Amino acid sequence: KDLNILYINAIIISHSSSDLLPTEGSEEASRHFLQEIVNILLAYMCKLFKRSTKVLDFHHPHQLKEGLEGFTLELSDQPENLEQLLVDCRDTLKYGVKTGHPRFFNQLSSGLDIIGLAGEWLTSTANTNMFTYEISPVFILMEEVVLRKMMDMLGWSNEEGDGIFCPGGTVSNLYSVLLARYHFFPEVKSRGMSAIPRLAMFTSSHSHYSIQKSAAVLGIGTENVLLVKCDERYVLSPAADAKDRGLYPFYVSATAGTTVYGAFDPLNDIADICERHGLWMHVDAAWGGGLLMSKRHRVKLQGIDRSSSVTWNPHKMMGVPLQCATLLVRKKGFLQECNQLCAEYLFQPDKHYDTSYDTGDKTIQCGRHVDVFKLWLMWKAKGMEGFESQINKCLENAEYLFDKLKNRTDFLLVFESKPEHSNVCFWYLPHSLRNLPPGCERDKKLHAVAPKIKAKMMEEGLTMIGYQPLGNKVNFFRCVFSNSATQREDVDFLLDEIVRLGHDL
Amino acid sequence: KDLNILYINAIIISHSSSDLLPTEGSEEASRHFLQEIVNILLAYMCKLFKRSTKVLDFHHPHQLKEGLEGFTLELSDQPENLEQLLVDCRDTLKYGVKTGHPRFFNQLSSGLDIIGLAGEWLTSTANTNMFTYEISPVFILMEEVVLRKMMDMLGWSNEEGDGIFCPGGTVSNLYSVLLARYHFFPEVKSRGMSAIPRLAMFTSSHSHYSIQKSAAVLGIGTENVLLVKCDERYVLSPAADAKDRGLYPFYVSATAGTTVYGAFDPLNDIADICERHGLWMHVDAAWGGGLLMSKRHRVKLQGIDRSSSVTWNPHKMMGVPLQCATLLVRKKGFLQECNQLCAEYLFQPDKHYDTSYDTGDKTIQCGRHVDVFKLWLMWKAKGMEGFESQINKCLENAEYLFDKLKNRTDFLLVFESKPEHSNVCFWYLPHSLRNLPPGCERDKKLHAVAPKIKAKMMEEGLTMIGYQPLGNKVNFFRCVFSNSATQREDVDFLLDEIVRLGHDL
Repeated sequence: KDLNILYINAIIISHSSSDLLPTEGSEEASRHFLQEIVNILLAYMCKLFKRSTKVLDFHHPHQLKEGLEGFTLELSDQPENLEQLLVDCRDTLKYGVKTGHPRFFNQLSSGLDIIGLAGEWLTSTANTNMFTYEISPVFILMEEVVLRKMMDMLGWSNEEGDGIFCPGGTVSNLYSVLLARYHFFPEVKSRGMSAIPRLAMFTSSHSHYSIQKSAAVLGIGTENVLLVKCDERYVLSPAADAKDRGLYPFYVSATAGTTVYGAFDPLNDIADICERHGLWMHVDAAWGGGLLMSKRHRVKLQGIDRSSSVTWNPHKMMGVPLQCATLLVRKKGFLQECNQLCAEYLFQPDKHYDTSYDTGDKTIQCGRHVDVFKLWLMWKAKGMEGFESQINKCLENAEYLFDKLKNRTDFLLVFESKPEHSNVCFWYLPHSLRNLPPGCERDKKLHAVAPKIKAKMMEEGLTMIGYQPLGNKVNFFRCVFSNSATQREDVDFLLDEIVRLGHDL
Repeated sequence: KDLNILYINAIIISHSSSDLLPTEGSEEASRHFLQEIVNILLAYMCKLFKRSTKVLDFHHPHQLKEGLEGFTLELSDQPENLEQLLVDCRDTLKYGVKTGHPRFFNQLSSGLDIIGLAGEWLTSTANTNMFTYEISPVFILMEEVVLRKMMDMLGWSNEEGDGIFCPGGTVSNLYSVLLARYHFFPEVKSRGMSAIPRLAMFTSSHSHYSIQKSAAVLGIGTENVLLVKCDERYVLSPAADAKDRGLYPFYVSATAGTTVYGAFDPLNDIADICERHGLWMHVDAAWGGGLLMSKRHRVKLQGIDRSSSVTWNPHKMMGVPLQCATLLVRKKGFLQECNQLCAEYLFQPDKHYDTSYDTGDKTIQCGRHVDVFKLWLMWKAKGMEGFESQINKCLENAEYLFDKLKNRTDFLLVFESKPEHSNVCFWYLPHSLRNLPPGCERDKKLHAVAPKIKAKMMEEGLTMIGYQPLGNKVNFFRCVFSNSATQREDVDFLLDEIVRLGHDL
């Protein structure tokens, strides 16, 4: 066995990438090299889930750029040997952030699902494109199966529904606006915006900024996105407003699970209004869509079946590795109609199989990464019930944190009501602030607390949580749970750590 | 050792995904499961490069959907055990297409680079997002390093240049139009297209259809994309034309390596015209950009340094695994200016590090997959010289095929001149057509030849090549070389196979 290891090392040390496949006789070397990579990845994975492991080993950009202990990002013209590449891989992981760590609370996407990971490894080995059935027969059909399942969960019948995997929820949201515009004004595709009225879109002031980004990209203009205040009755009066201003209202984006608060817009009320006014109703459920997998929580999305389109990112609440986002459209065949250009040189209609499976012309991309397989494999592995228990647990963690905070005087909840999703927003009050009365003076000091704690937290690297201001609220922490590795003890740890780092501020 | 295997099998057979990490005490099971997956992938990889392996095992959509020998795409509510998942993974690969096979000539992206594959496996294990420096410190800096290298190769000075990795070249091209529009009319972002003149774009009739798709998406309208005929002097007269029609010409997309012919537009001539008329010059070098790595071939892109923006997909000619595409922009900081919305709740300006490294607001996405690492690692592994020899070899294969075809009477070249890129386009003349004079009658029959051969080819699965009609040319084969595994014997095989399948048509 020792001889074998020596032999392997000899292969790795003295060889370069040109000694790997497809070079003749390099099968063994290629296997060994990839096995060494896998050993690094497996070691990383096992370490990741250990609470004694740091979440990150922070360095400033200039430090990483200067090179750390032999790790240099610079590229030379000369090839490196395989051993150096293994070192580089180890270092890349070392200086990165362990987003799967049980104490990483920083993003809506976290965790590292082993089945999903296996799915990604296979996807990259298959190295193909969601372009035509010809080169992706299995993945194209899997996409159909998975999207159908998701549409069933929205409550859409078998006669309706279409969809596509997108590179992120922002692109999904962009699709929804594109489709809505085409629905009302199909001539826009060939003639452009100058041939149609000035459009107005509606969304809540807490919706994701991608709705505005879509308006900027599509030529509608961000000023024509009318932000409806939250916690008021929704769209009606602004719709009248838009008409007064000579705008043509056509689109509403409701949010199921806002980014910061995890709030759900009242979908049925919004659907009523959209029906009455003939508006396209989109639901941005990028974050909240996962709750459809839970019998306990899906009630929060009641009315989603009445939407015209839905964004739902399995890479968020469902814990699928990045990137896995979808856009679902109720009108069958409409993605194709809206986006096709029928470039015959890419999508030959005279092929010998059913070319309706060539999905390339449904998209605004062309080539498209295979994002479906990892989700398909996870679904096989867990079933609905597996996703359900995973998601329920994340919301239980949120409730646990909420209950803890409610009873403490050194923390202040941003909302007194129970979280609807797994977001819990709060301030920490250092000792020096605890006796100040609420108001401008305290707010000014409080605004600086979260950034200071976060800076120290990243330097020490034991946990990670995000913060932000919102509206008239100064910087507060937002804790989110989407990692199935997180336990109550991690929630306890987070609060202790905030206190430890912030107590004396 | 046998006991060990039995033990491993026991773990796999009786366990389900809930027995994997993060479940307590599941480290060993998780390692074993992933190792089993890796064994499947390594076996696949080694088989892939063998000429005795089929390129594909074709089945029609309805056959795959009905389920083949126990392989079902359907998802049940119940979880499957780990053993079944391994079977599913094997089947997924079995019924897929081996795009890395030395005899796969079907797409611009082919091959399977071992180093790139290692890079993808690491990327998915790191499972993070190109959103902020906070969660992707290493990858964000690698992006900067790699993009800088690419911009150096364009000939842009250190004072200029910006860029981003995109989900495919079509999105890169969309960015270019978006940036050009914003450059001339920054008010479009907030006020929309109704506040600016009607725009006109120019591109050649052989450019990729994504230029028109961009016009459709951005609200410019496909009819305002003026297609300049190829093989004439380029843009000048149409620009005057556009003005006559009340359109505002602002953008030209030149192509460096067209999809079908691999032709290069005369960049310096186009740059002259763009300078004279103050137009944004984009170069779609998605396919041709790789030639910049070759001292022998980079001359074909002369003038690219004068462009305002460039699309360059390393996942094509450079053999990087899918997906790896870039958009490069000469004007520094312009991506940020054009696309930023400064959502403070996502991009906190009061963080403790240099937040200019938070690239999320430069994009039209938000979350963004890490596409840089595999390219960075390949660059380390091969150096410029490695890419260069890989690319030179692909073009040598194209010349070899071209030379062979020139001397045959049963094949007809679409062009008599030497290929500029690795595309070689040709017809096969079955025996029955060989004595027909060129003209309508022969064309009608010839049009049906390629689809028939392709259908048989896919059924038999020994090689794969694409075909398409173009302009007034009936269906012809397009052979492209981007796979470093392909040798001359594979080119010989392809021609023999076409003859074998088509001789009696």
